[in-house]
Amino acid sequence: MRAKVSRVPGPKSKKALEKMQRLNGGWGLPLPMVFESGQGSYFRDVDGNVFLDFASQVASSPLGYNHPALSAVLKNYSRAPVKIAGQDFIVPEHMEMIEELVNVSPPEMNAAFLVNSGAEAVENAIKSALRRCHGYYGASFEYAFHGRTLGALSCTNSKIVHKAGYWTFPIQRLPFDERAPELLEEMIKREGGAENLSFVIVEAVQGEGGYNIAPDSLMKGIRKVTRGHGIPLICDEIQCGMGRTGKWWAFEHYGIKPDVFCAAKALQVGATIANRSFFPPEPSSISSTWGGGSVIDLAMGAATIKAIKKERLLSNCTRMGGYLLKRLHELAAKHPEVTGPRGLGLMCAFDLADKKARDHVAEHLIANGLVALGAGRKSIRLIPPYTVSEKEIDEAVEIIDKSLVEVRKERKPRGLSPVEHAI
Amino acid sequence: MRAKVSRVPGPKSKKALEKMQRLNGGWGLPLPMVFESGQGSYFRDVDGNVFLDFASQVASSPLGYNHPALSAVLKNYSRAPVKIAGQDFIVPEHMEMIEELVNVSPPEMNAAFLVNSGAEAVENAIKSALRRCHGYYGASFEYAFHGRTLGALSCTNSKIVHKAGYWTFPIQRLPFDERAPELLEEMIKREGGAENLSFVIVEAVQGEGGYNIAPDSLMKGIRKVTRGHGIPLICDEIQCGMGRTGKWWAFEHYGIKPDVFCAAKALQVGATIANRSFFPPEPSSISSTWGGGSVIDLAMGAATIKAIKKERLLSNCTRMGGYLLKRLHELAAKHPEVTGPRGLGLMCAFDLADKKARDHVAEHLIANGLVALGAGRKSIRLIPPYTVSEKEIDEAVEIIDKSLVEVRKERKPRGLSPVEHAI
Repeated sequence: MRAKVSRVPGPKSKKALEKMQRLNGGWGLPLPMVFESGQGSYFRDVDGNVFLDFASQVASSPLGYNHPALSAVLKNYSRAPVKIAGQDFIVPEHMEMIEELVNVSPPEMNAAFLVNSGAEAVENAIKSALRRCHGYYGASFEYAFHGRTLGALSCTNSKIVHKAGYWTFPIQRLPFDERAPELLEEMIKREGGAENLSFVIVEAVQGEGGYNIAPDSLMKGIRKVTRGHGIPLICDEIQCGMGRTGKWWAFEHYGIKPDVFCAAKALQVGATIANRSFFPPEPSSISSTWGGGSVIDLAMGAATIKAIKKERLLSNCTRMGGYLLKRLHELAAKHPEVTGPRGLGLMCAFDLADKKARDHVAEHLIANGLVALGAGRKSIRLIPPYTVSEKEIDEAVEIIDKSLVEVRKERKPRGLSPVEHAI
Repeated sequence: MRAKVSRVPGPKSKKALEKMQRLNGGWGLPLPMVFESGQGSYFRDVDGNVFLDFASQVASSPLGYNHPALSAVLKNYSRAPVKIAGQDFIVPEHMEMIEELVNVSPPEMNAAFLVNSGAEAVENAIKSALRRCHGYYGASFEYAFHGRTLGALSCTNSKIVHKAGYWTFPIQRLPFDERAPELLEEMIKREGGAENLSFVIVEAVQGEGGYNIAPDSLMKGIRKVTRGHGIPLICDEIQCGMGRTGKWWAFEHYGIKPDVFCAAKALQVGATIANRSFFPPEPSSISSTWGGGSVIDLAMGAATIKAIKKERLLSNCTRMGGYLLKRLHELAAKHPEVTGPRGLGLMCAFDLADKKARDHVAEHLIANGLVALGAGRKSIRLIPPYTVSEKEIDEAVEIIDKSLVEVRKERKPRGLSPVEHAI
């Protein structure tokens, strides 16, 4: 298969998008096509355009479209309900998901609380930390994105529009670089001691904030400081976890273990994972009606973990990620406007001069058949499925190359799609 | 069909529940059986026990189990993914759901923002209110339950264990009775004027907090006060909405309209519903990766709305609700320990002396084949599917009758299931 775009948005997509702008209270800046169906790394829109997808539903579609292992799962569900009150009515899918999840987690992380989204997973990590540590503030990082519910959003420092006018809990901010451990120590002293700091939350590879890869000294350093003071360290693995970086969890690249971590996206459900003793012991301290009860999502998530193991997709992420990064370096050598090519496994990105230039390139990528999302202020993130091939990476790089040439020739953006808000 | 229970928990359920206690970080007090499958108002557990279900997956299964309209939907989904990044990649199911939803909402409520849970729906109603009103506090009600993410949880006043040790935003509390409008006026004056109050949030019929039905003067009064001052009124319809009370939304019983309302549970996805102009206009002010992208849930929710219309289930909720309430009054006349029978449509409850007595009765109900959840401190809630028949209500009342007799004879609870935490 190859990407093939005649007109974007096509007439059917255009009509639907106009309707959605009227109906959708959450209207942001959706991509200029209405999704119809997919196969592998490609999807078709309702107008018959075929796109090569290096966005993977913001990392929620790790096996690509219509993977046989997932289609096999769907065949089993012909009876309603598929939404169970999962903390009250236990279903086998709930148990199987937790077992699969703890089996690919560090040995001491032996329990999980399943919820409906990444944001809810972060909320529950924070709540579990707060029940142990009664500090009056938490700490997160510059450019962090941890979700949009008000607890998770308090830790988010990615874009002003995410937080403007909303209430926030007291979360102090650390720089996402090697100065962080020292500044964390200073913060603890300044605020009257470790008992006042309830948790530190970090993404080993920042997602929405710009695909920034934490330096080794940052992760090792904050683990050392938090462990020394008995402060819970929360790793947010919602975008970077579940195998995309070539290891199950991005924190494993640093040889550290958090006290609790959060997964979602590729997992198909939200999860807060820790040692059983980390969760509040009093019944009903944390709960969720649908948590552990979306039976199809649970079964799809468990099947995803199994397929990643069976098809050795962690090593494909490492190998193809290395190949994609090599090709991005070649692009940067050829096109001086491309800077900062970077990646950990299949979590890759590069920068352009500024937001305007990035959005302009992204528009051309789409018009040429490659779907790639923005990240941070001036980055384009490339997150193909774990099953991606060299041939598909070559096609993507070819489209990027072509688009960069077009952009240089063109004076102003066509206003197709800013793609900047995807999280 | 009739309920038939031999042993609860049966051996398979017992084994599974013990395993879950080890694996589940959110372990609360689940019901003493592992759900297998259902049909209409009944479900079977993995040990072959058959239960009459007056809990309906905490109102998430309004059409009963395996309704043909829902099974028909499931047949359409054999291709992955079924989780789309719904605010970025528009799918037809997203549009259809919003259209169905606004069609059963008051005419000026013409847009919706779809999310993953009731808690997220409340978070987004609060965020939309905060973007308009820059007050430093909000107001909610005694016994309210609005969800467990930290924003929604700040408005929750149901049980101490839900909030103990967690951070909270400044939400002031009003009594859930006719004094509320006057006290709200006093609060506004005391806090320096209406511009300091960002929103008032209320359930017309409280769910988790005890199945308390707001008096007419409360709902009309707070609408008058909030409208007079231009303060957004949020109605939480997560448990009481979507037809259960015999009208689509419980606030309609009061002849009022909120500025924004929240739905979930029976809807299969979370939704914040308002006039389009109520939502923040800046792109990306509110968003959610999976919001509007869980395609099966969206299709199931839209099919639920259609089935409620086609099968005239609102009038069945009213008629069967009236019948159930009549039978509960008969029970109260026969058993002096049963007090406060109450209901609005198929959202019914009665009280026992205290928590201990309530839990004791609930254990016997389950042992006799009726699943009913606790609510508040001493209530049992009865929420059968909208399709329930008189015959099934008679069977439920027979089981309650029998259980009350048994409890009087027995001295101490058997400790089967406290069922108190379901939300």
